Amino acid sequence: MKFKVNSALQYSVIKPSTFIFNVHALRTANQTVLEETLVIDPYIRIEEFTAVNSPNRFVRMEVAEPMNFIISYKATVDTHCNIIENREGADTISLGKLDGEVIPYLFPSRYCQSDKLQRLAYSKFGNIQNTFHKVHAISDWIFKNVEYISGSTNSHTSALDTISERSGVCRDFAHLGIALCRALSIPARYFTGYAFKLFPADFHACFEAYIGERWIVFDATQLVPLNGMVKIASGRDAADAAVASIFGNVISTSIAVSCDIAEQTFEPIWYDNSNARFVAY
Amino acid sequence: MKFKVNSALQYSVIKPSTFIFNVHALRTANQTVLEETLVIDPYIRIEEFTAVNSPNRFVRMEVAEPMNFIISYKATVDTHCNIIENREGADTISLGKLDGEVIPYLFPSRYCQSDKLQRLAYSKFGNIQNTFHKVHAISDWIFKNVEYISGSTNSHTSALDTISERSGVCRDFAHLGIALCRALSIPARYFTGYAFKLFPADFHACFEAYIGERWIVFDATQLVPLNGMVKIASGRDAADAAVASIFGNVISTSIAVSCDIAEQTFEPIWYDNSNARFVAY
Amino acid sequence: MKFKVNSALQYSVIKPSTFIFNVHALRTANQTVLEETLVIDPYIRIEEFTAVNSPNRFVRMEVAEPMNFIISYKATVDTHCNIIENREGADTISLGKLDGEVIPYLFPSRYCQSDKLQRLAYSKFGNIQNTFHKVHAISDWIFKNVEYISGSTNSHTSALDTISERSGVCRDFAHLGIALCRALSIPARYFTGYAFKLFPADFHACFEAYIGERWIVFDATQLVPLNGMVKIASGRDAADAAVASIFGNVISTSIAVSCDIAEQTFEPIWYDNSNARFVAY
Amino acid sequence: MKFKVNSALQYSVIKPSTFIFNVHALRTANQTVLEETLVIDPYIRIEEFTAVNSPNRFVRMEVAEPMNFIISYKATVDTHCNIIENREGADTISLGKLDGEVIPYLFPSRYCQSDKLQRLAYSKFGNIQNTFHKVHAISDWIFKNVEYISGSTNSHTSALDTISERSGVCRDFAHLGIALCRALSIPARYFTGYAFKLFPADFHACFEAYIGERWIVFDATQLVPLNGMVKIASGRDAADAAVASIFGNVISTSIAVSCDIAEQTFEPIWYDNSNARFVAY
Repeated sequence: MKFKVNSALQYSVIKPSTFIFNVHALRTANQTVLEETLVIDPYIRIEEFTAVNSPNRFVRMEVAEPMNFIISYKATVDTHCNIIENREGADTISLGKLDGEVIPYLFPSRYCQSDKLQRLAYSKFGNIQNTFHKVHAISDWIFKNVEYISGSTNSHTSALDTISERSGVCRDFAHLGIALCRALSIPARYFTGYAFKLFPADFHACFEAYIGERWIVFDATQLVPLNGMVKIASGRDAADAAVASIFGNVISTSIAVSCDIAEQTFEPIWYDNSNARFVAY
Repeated sequence: MKFKVNSALQYSVIKPSTFIFNVHALRTANQTVLEETLVIDPYIRIEEFTAVNSPNRFVRMEVAEPMNFIISYKATVDTHCNIIENREGADTISLGKLDGEVIPYLFPSRYCQSDKLQRLAYSKFGNIQNTFHKVHAISDWIFKNVEYISGSTNSHTSALDTISERSGVCRDFAHLGIALCRALSIPARYFTGYAFKLFPADFHACFEAYIGERWIVFDATQLVPLNGMVKIASGRDAADAAVASIFGNVISTSIAVSCDIAEQTFEPIWYDNSNARFVAY
Repeated sequence: MKFKVNSALQYSVIKPSTFIFNVHALRTANQTVLEETLVIDPYIRIEEFTAVNSPNRFVRMEVAEPMNFIISYKATVDTHCNIIENREGADTISLGKLDGEVIPYLFPSRYCQSDKLQRLAYSKFGNIQNTFHKVHAISDWIFKNVEYISGSTNSHTSALDTISERSGVCRDFAHLGIALCRALSIPARYFTGYAFKLFPADFHACFEAYIGERWIVFDATQLVPLNGMVKIASGRDAADAAVASIFGNVISTSIAVSCDIAEQTFEPIWYDNSNARFVAY
Repeated sequence: MKFKVNSALQYSVIKPSTFIFNVHALRTANQTVLEETLVIDPYIRIEEFTAVNSPNRFVRMEVAEPMNFIISYKATVDTHCNIIENREGADTISLGKLDGEVIPYLFPSRYCQSDKLQRLAYSKFGNIQNTFHKVHAISDWIFKNVEYISGSTNSHTSALDTISERSGVCRDFAHLGIALCRALSIPARYFTGYAFKLFPADFHACFEAYIGERWIVFDATQLVPLNGMVKIASGRDAADAAVASIFGNVISTSIAVSCDIAEQTFEPIWYDNSNARFVAY
C-alpha cells in the first residue's frame, strides 16, 4: 500500500533546548520510503541518527535561543506488511530460546509495570494456551474494559494508572497491552506510526507481541485497520519512542498529522474474531 | 586489583520456570577475568548469551520440573579502573553531541521516573554548572537525605517512592541517583557488582553518569570504596540488570555473596569532598 | 452469642511515644460487655476516651522513657447481631435522604481511593439494581480476584494497590470493598473486631455497607462466620480504626489474639449465595 | 471585617445525579452572616444540612433529569478572626491531652498521606522545638519548594504527588502542609473559603494547625492576606470539604467567584517572618 503521510509540529522555545524527534517513516524490508522531505522553518541545523540496534530514525536539533519554529515531515511510503492468516500456526517460543535482542522486551519499563500485574494477568489470561489467542484476548479485554477518552491522561500516565482508572488514549491502551503481555512472559513492544483513518488525526500508538519469531501488531483501540499504518518506530514504551523528546523549556503550540492513501485500492484488515488475520510490519 | 568473588543462589522451583541470571564478572578492557567457574547443583543445562549492544553476560536456564538447586559462581578478577583525579577537566557534553547508544540512558525507565522529578532536580541542582559537581551533589544529597534501612523496600520500589519515603537499600539509592541525573538531562545508568567490604555481604548496586565521554561511578550509599567493585552489569535500571530474572513460580531460599582481595595491597578510594578522585570501570 | 476475647500487644519503646489503642469491645445495643479487664505491665497510666460521634473506645497512653511493656485486654462479650434473612427487602436509600452522619462514608479516604475506581466499579457492578446484590457482588468479586497472602502487604497498602496487584490480607480486602462501594455512591466503612475461628489468629477487618438504613457486614475474605465477630470499632478506613496508632519511635515485638465461644451452641452464618442471610452488628 | 462574597456554579447534568454543595459561609462566633441568598436557576428543590460534629453547611440536591442549571450564592459576612501576636506563647499540646474531636486530624487521609512522609518531615522540621515555628517552617518550605502552576494538577492529586512533582494549586499546597504536620503528630485540617484579592478569582484552600488549643491558619501559597478570608468549611482534606461533591454524570460548565470588601478600611495581615502575626478563624 502507498500512503502519503504528513506531520507538522510547532514549538515556542523559551530557553535553550535540545529536541530529539522521531517522525520519519521507518525503512525496512516491508516499508519503502519512496520520497520524503523534512523542513524546519526557520532553518535550524539538524543531525539525523539511528538508535542502537534498531532502525528507528531520529533527528536531533539544538535551539540556542528563544524562538518559534515548525518542523514538517512529508513522505510517500510503500508498505507491504505480512498478513498472518492462520494464527494456529504461530507457535509459542520458549523463553529459553529467545534471541538476546528480544529479551529486553520481557522486562518492565517506565510506563509498563508488568512486575505489578502478574497476578492479574495470570488470573485473566493464564489459562489460554496458544500465545496468539492469549495476546488477542488481552487486546480485546482492553478494548472492552478501558474507555477511550481524549485528554483523560497525560505523559506521566502508566499502565498501572490505566488498570485502575480504566480510561485513556492510544498510548495508554498500548502500554497496558505491553504490560499484560510481559507479565505473562511474552515479549512486547511499543509501536508508533501514522495511521489511516485515525480520527481525530494524530500520531497513533499500538503494540507488537513477539509470537512465532515475528512481531505481530495488536491495536487495543481498534481505531484503525491493522494494515493501515506507516511505522515510525518501536521501543520499550513511549519513553523510547516518543515523537518528540524535549530537554529544555519549550511550549508545544500546535500539531497536525495526516495519513492518506496514495493509490486507488485498499483492502483494510479489521479485527474479526471469527476469521482472524493479523499483520506484522 | 585482584579480587576473588563468590556467589551462591539457592532456589526452590514450584512450577516449570525460566531463569535469566546475571552474576558473571564483566570482561572489558579494564576488567580481566583470570579464572571463573559456574556450577549448578544438581546439574541443569544452561545457555550463556550476551545482551544486545552491551557486554553483560547472561545465563539462561529452563527448569522443567519442581526441584531445588544452587547456582554457584566463583571468579578471580583483575580490575584496572580509571581514576579521574581532576574533575574540573570533565566537560559537560552537549546533548546534541551524544552518541546514539548513550541516548536511551536519558529517558525515564521502570524504577527511575525522571519525568516526574524535573522540577525538584532543577531546583536543587540546576544552578550547579559543572556536570561533575552536579552529579556529586546529587550523590551527596541522597546520602544525607535517604536512610539506609535493610529490608525497608522491595523489588517494586522506585525512585518516586524513595523521594517521598526517604529510606531504602543500595538499589534504591542508585535508582534515585539515576532519576535525578536524567531529570537534568545527564545520561545515567544502573551498575551492579561484587563489592569489597560490603556489609552485610550482598550484591551491590550504584550508578554511573556519563560525563566527559566516560561513565563515572557514583555510589550514594558510600558503603564501599569506589575502586572496590567487580562489575557485573550495567543497564537502564534494575529491570535490565537484575541478578536473577525469574519467569515462573520459584522461591528464593538463600543467597551468599563475597568479595575479597586476592593480593596484598589495596589503596581504597573513598569519598572525599576536598580532593575528589573518581573512578570509571 | 457469648465470646471470650483476648489480646496482648507487646512493645519496645525507643523514644518517648504516645499510643492510642483501640482494642476494647464496643458497647452497643447489640453487644454487651459482660466483663473486661485491661492490664498494662508494668503499670503505665492510661486515659480512656471515645471518638467524636462514634462509640469507638480508645485508650491513650504516654510513655516518657524507653521501656518494654505489654498491654493485655480480656473480655467476655455477649453479641446479638441482627440477621437479615431477606435481602430483597433492603431498599436502596436515595443519596438525597441519607443522614448527615452517614455522608462522610461516601467520600474517598486514605486507603480507599474511590474517586479513582468509579469507571471500573460502574462497569463491573453498575448494572446490578438492588443495593444488597450489588455489594454482595463486590464482596464475591474480591474474594475471587484477590489472593489472600499473609505478609504480602504493609500498613501503606491501599485499595489502589490491591486493584492492580491482586493480593493482600483482611485489611486490604476490606479497603477494596469500601472503595468499590463508595465509587458507586454506597456509604461504606471499615470494621475491626475479634473473630471466631480466624486462622492464623489475629485481629480481623471487614467492611460494612449502608443498605436500608442499616450497616450490613460483608467480609470479602470469607474467613469467619458473619456472626462470629466481636466488634471493636468502625471508621472510614484503617487510618481511623487502627488497633494501635503510635506517635514516636517504637518496635512492636509480639501480638497474640484469641476469640473463643463461651457457651455451648453456636450456629455460624456462612456465606451462602442461594439463601443469603446477612448480619448487622 | 465585612466582605461581600459571591459564587456561581453552572452544570450540565447528563444523567440523574445527586449534588452536595458546600458554598455557604460558616456561622461561628467569629463569623456572622449578615445576609445571604442562594438561588438555583431553574428552581430545583434543595435540602440544607450540617455535617456531624462540624458547623459546615451543606446543600443537597437531586436532579432527576438531564438539564442545565446555575447555583448562585451571595452573602455579606462580618468576620472577626483572632489575631495571635506572639507566637512564643503558643505552647505545644501534648498528644496525650488532645480532645477526642481533634484526634482524627492526626490520622492520614485521602490526599494527605502523612504515614509516608514521616522520615522526610522529621529530617526537615524535627529539630524545631516550638510548634508554631515548626508549622511556620513547613508553610515557608512549601512556598519556596512548590511552584504554583494553574491547571498543573487535578482532583486526584495528593500530597504524595506534590512532594515529588513540586507543582500545584492552593488545594495541593494545603494538602502537603496538612500531611507534613500530621507526619510530625501535629493535628491539621483543610480550610476552604472565599478569599479577598485572590487572582485568578476562585475558591481558596489553605490549612489550619492545632496549636495551643486553637486552629491557626497557614496559607503556603501566600496569595491572600491571612485575615482576608471568609470561611466556608474545614475537614480532613478536600474529600470532606469539596465545594461540590457530585454523584452521577455531570459536566461543570462554568464557575465564577468573588470576594470584595464591604467597608472602607481593611488592614491586611501578610506573612512577615520578622514580626509574625497569625490568625485563627
